[in-house]
Amino acid sequence: MKIALLAGGVGGAKFAKGLRAELLANHPGSELSIIANVGDDMWLSGLKVCPDLDSLMYALGGANDEVRGWGRANETERVSAEMAAYGAGWPWFTLGDLDLGTHIARTGFLHDGLSLTEATAKLAHRWKLGATLLPASDQDAETWVILDPAHPDAVGEPAALHFEEWWVRLRATVPAVAFERRSRSGGPEAVASPAALEAIGSANIVIVAPSNPVVSIGTMAGFPFDRLDRERGGVAGLPGIAEALRATSAPVIGVSPIIESSPLRGMARQCLDALRLPCTAEAVGLGYGARQHGGILDAWLVDTADAAALPALQEAGLRATARPLWMRDEVSSSRLAADTIAFAM
Amino acid sequence: MKIALLAGGVGGAKFAKGLRAELLANHPGSELSIIANVGDDMWLSGLKVCPDLDSLMYALGGANDEVRGWGRANETERVSAEMAAYGAGWPWFTLGDLDLGTHIARTGFLHDGLSLTEATAKLAHRWKLGATLLPASDQDAETWVILDPAHPDAVGEPAALHFEEWWVRLRATVPAVAFERRSRSGGPEAVASPAALEAIGSANIVIVAPSNPVVSIGTMAGFPFDRLDRERGGVAGLPGIAEALRATSAPVIGVSPIIESSPLRGMARQCLDALRLPCTAEAVGLGYGARQHGGILDAWLVDTADAAALPALQEAGLRATARPLWMRDEVSSSRLAADTIAFAM
Repeated sequence: MKIALLAGGVGGAKFAKGLRAELLANHPGSELSIIANVGDDMWLSGLKVCPDLDSLMYALGGANDEVRGWGRANETERVSAEMAAYGAGWPWFTLGDLDLGTHIARTGFLHDGLSLTEATAKLAHRWKLGATLLPASDQDAETWVILDPAHPDAVGEPAALHFEEWWVRLRATVPAVAFERRSRSGGPEAVASPAALEAIGSANIVIVAPSNPVVSIGTMAGFPFDRLDRERGGVAGLPGIAEALRATSAPVIGVSPIIESSPLRGMARQCLDALRLPCTAEAVGLGYGARQHGGILDAWLVDTADAAALPALQEAGLRATARPLWMRDEVSSSRLAADTIAFAM
Repeated sequence: MKIALLAGGVGGAKFAKGLRAELLANHPGSELSIIANVGDDMWLSGLKVCPDLDSLMYALGGANDEVRGWGRANETERVSAEMAAYGAGWPWFTLGDLDLGTHIARTGFLHDGLSLTEATAKLAHRWKLGATLLPASDQDAETWVILDPAHPDAVGEPAALHFEEWWVRLRATVPAVAFERRSRSGGPEAVASPAALEAIGSANIVIVAPSNPVVSIGTMAGFPFDRLDRERGGVAGLPGIAEALRATSAPVIGVSPIIESSPLRGMARQCLDALRLPCTAEAVGLGYGARQHGGILDAWLVDTADAAALPALQEAGLRATARPLWMRDEVSSSRLAADTIAFAM
């Protein structure tokens, strides 16, 4: 069986680990392709940093910091301290020494002429992931956040900043009014990577992970499906991804990142606020939309606590059901993956 | 008093420290500009690495490893181990973590649009060097080594390799037949940096440090003066440097890096061999040449052990004298600097 998973970083990695375990246990010989959001990527002091790709790689490689929830285990920060002493980089965005090894290696591979897809494969080779890790785009496709200029805390802030700066430095406390994609000046317009499109097209099941619907999934597939750009109050996906999701012969099933109006992790609420959408499993499912009505999903999994949303979702053309979604450990993550596969087929 | 010093890395740094101490003690208010060789520089895994600039910066900043003789004190190599695990970088060229902080900061400044001169000033600001550190060129000006294809150890080696690869990986055991300057493909032809030319032009004394005459000084000023390119069996300098040395109203004095046919440090012998020149204080002085005959020097300091060379040097138009040149500590380095200044004036 071939499975394509669209995923953001930390939440996507939790689900991906459970999915890999479930496939190994009950669907041997399956091939898992993970299409990762690249909207959080940045060039920092000349280095290409890819937070979501690395969160997935470290988690699946068993090298992530389970306690802190991000980055490498046994991390140190000697290099970052030097950079800060020189006034280089972002003082609020500390890069660990081990993590920097990844960024430097990737940057070198890109300078050697490899695509981000090829560079990611070279990096992932070390970790023996049991899955193919694919950047959603080979081009720079940074998510930038337009701040609400009327908010009192926006005083002294730039009108727009990189998503990671909004997320990490401002902790998303200054409201966003929109998100837009930016490339380096002079760089090519970002499109979906050929390998990501191939993975979606050849899959037997496509799964949308319980990741942030706006800045992790939306930056790949667009969100919400009926206003797919900034002008209409949504976020634009990478050209090709939504089309591939609508064209694939595989069922496309999504897992809600929201339980009882609370995101599983991260700050989906602030992102949904910017699009003037409620932070509910129902709103996110309706935002992805049913394929027969121009959306990207056939089926939508909500938590048992959100079963009341099922009629509205079914009304919108989605096969919808309720299952326990909380991933407290690898056992519950695997069970959720099994439920997802079973419901898709 | 304004002094311009042309210097390579480790040997140049030893002399520069002594010179700074001498100026502070006996010529207060003096300005010291150090023009550093950039031939050893490289782009390694996307990072701009400048060994000579950094050796000078760390030594003058008191941050160098005195025992090992290069790099930062209290160094670790966590990042390099990661890079090696990914197959990135040069396995024989380990970069320390603290040192990498410098390279990443510099690379970021260059990506921000700063020249290497400006980036070097930003880095040096942290260390309060008491001197202005200037790269000899703002462009990539890498020294590449053409190996002797007839030598048995050249089998399996490339025809040409970066100077650092010859020096560090091969320990210069495969003979060189020539050196040439290379830029990144598509990059501009390297020329002397405006700040370096200005420092030479406005100096009251110009000193050529006891550094490797071929790959440290020659890559800046050319060597030997009567055959300044590869075709004629020499090494080409950076356009502008030799002209500035000939044009300046300041006396130009050189200090021999060779005592009794032994280089003070490094592998000058292998470099002089490639140019078919003997490894003697006399040959190096004659190779720099007297300004009135088209060379770059007015005066040449040899060790007391090499006093027998004085007549031949004087015959060639150089003011030459013998002094103790061995820099065993900062006291002897300062005394050598004092002797150099006294003899120049």
